[in-house]
Amino acid sequence: MNDVISENERIDDLQCKGYRLIQNTACFCFGMDAVLLSSFATAGKNASVLDLCSGNGVIPILMHAKNPQTKYVGIEIQDVAFNLAQRNASLNNISGDVVFVQGNIKEIKSLTEGRLFDVVTTNPPYMTEKHGIVNPESAKAIARHELLCNLDDVVKAAADSLKVHGRFFMVHRPKRLVQIFDSMTSHGLEPKRIRMVHPYDDKAANMVLIEAVKGGKPQLDVEPPLIVYNHDGSYTQELLKMYGDNADE
Amino acid sequence: MNDVISENERIDDLQCKGYRLIQNTACFCFGMDAVLLSSFATAGKNASVLDLCSGNGVIPILMHAKNPQTKYVGIEIQDVAFNLAQRNASLNNISGDVVFVQGNIKEIKSLTEGRLFDVVTTNPPYMTEKHGIVNPESAKAIARHELLCNLDDVVKAAADSLKVHGRFFMVHRPKRLVQIFDSMTSHGLEPKRIRMVHPYDDKAANMVLIEAVKGGKPQLDVEPPLIVYNHDGSYTQELLKMYGDNADE
Repeated sequence: MNDVISENERIDDLQCKGYRLIQNTACFCFGMDAVLLSSFATAGKNASVLDLCSGNGVIPILMHAKNPQTKYVGIEIQDVAFNLAQRNASLNNISGDVVFVQGNIKEIKSLTEGRLFDVVTTNPPYMTEKHGIVNPESAKAIARHELLCNLDDVVKAAADSLKVHGRFFMVHRPKRLVQIFDSMTSHGLEPKRIRMVHPYDDKAANMVLIEAVKGGKPQLDVEPPLIVYNHDGSYTQELLKMYGDNADE
Repeated sequence: MNDVISENERIDDLQCKGYRLIQNTACFCFGMDAVLLSSFATAGKNASVLDLCSGNGVIPILMHAKNPQTKYVGIEIQDVAFNLAQRNASLNNISGDVVFVQGNIKEIKSLTEGRLFDVVTTNPPYMTEKHGIVNPESAKAIARHELLCNLDDVVKAAADSLKVHGRFFMVHRPKRLVQIFDSMTSHGLEPKRIRMVHPYDDKAANMVLIEAVKGGKPQLDVEPPLIVYNHDGSYTQELLKMYGDNADE
């Protein structure tokens, strides 16, 4: 495989039907949030799925492993990540089903030619704080901080890209939940289901998974908490199952 | 004690320093939500606390048991409940510290003569649905359904009654969390801390405890989930501790 990877790159096994992912260690590498979002998000067979802020393409690639009949479009602004995402689709021989488009999600309508989707997913930059960033042009800084787009830009792009009653799935930080709800409802996306992710059962949540429905009626389900670790530091059964589900399917 | 109670009434031990509560079984009797809210809500010594929709007065009476140096005002609109609340303060010999005022929280400024408080608490009616109510004038229906006041009325009354940086504590239904956040922020109350209450660790949340700060900066902490029952149907240690804390203090 040495011919397909370059300096700073490595190939990770996605533990799912043999799917693999090239990652660039100078960029943002996917983490647990991507795995949890791809498990939380659901798409019917033959649904159309748009992924915003795709990075190296991990979300649509993981979702394709579960729903290979579904077609995916991923949007990524950064050269290096976009290039990786395309190569990752090729590496898994799914370039016909998972297509990446390079561009700014603020121009989503021109990037997708006004197409509307059944499902939109995103694992966007989480952090508003711009102080302390050594190099604001670095790929990692752009993936983590709201430098090129902010939360409201992402939510608006999702709302503009969804069919009526289409579903939007996002993973984000609980600290921003008030702003997330406000942004969603102001763009016509009604939060319908959330799940808090806690590192331990006695610790504060550090991630939240959210499903919103375009034009949905107000009524929120707060699902059972998702706990990552047992007190002995091992993964909980449910977490293992989420990784294992991929491996078994 | 037969001389202090009437038909349909009973006296419950609050498991806290010998405090007791007269309840009227034709009215809404306090439940676990009141105990959880009085545990979640904190008030400094010598703070002033206002309780909205007091019912039989359980919240300020439970809080007084923990913070006897604090002064409490409770507002209740219904005759029978207001009468009960006053008799409950007398029964516990705390009428000097816990004062009840009868009236509509929509007129909070005149009821409290424009006074501002350090802390506001409330366990308000939860349900918007008005269909299926056999008797909309019944005391239970008024306590449970938004017949005389709605969520936004309660939040507005809290905002109007708080000092800058004063704290508002509410227990409510998670299904309405989006609307709760929207109402709070529109009245200048920033949600700062929430705790989801799940009957079992693998079931959806059925209560949410919320702390908001008047004029607070946006940043929400989602505390560890509060689980009520073990899988064998017994109370969890934490729940027992919340009841036990009362008994021990």
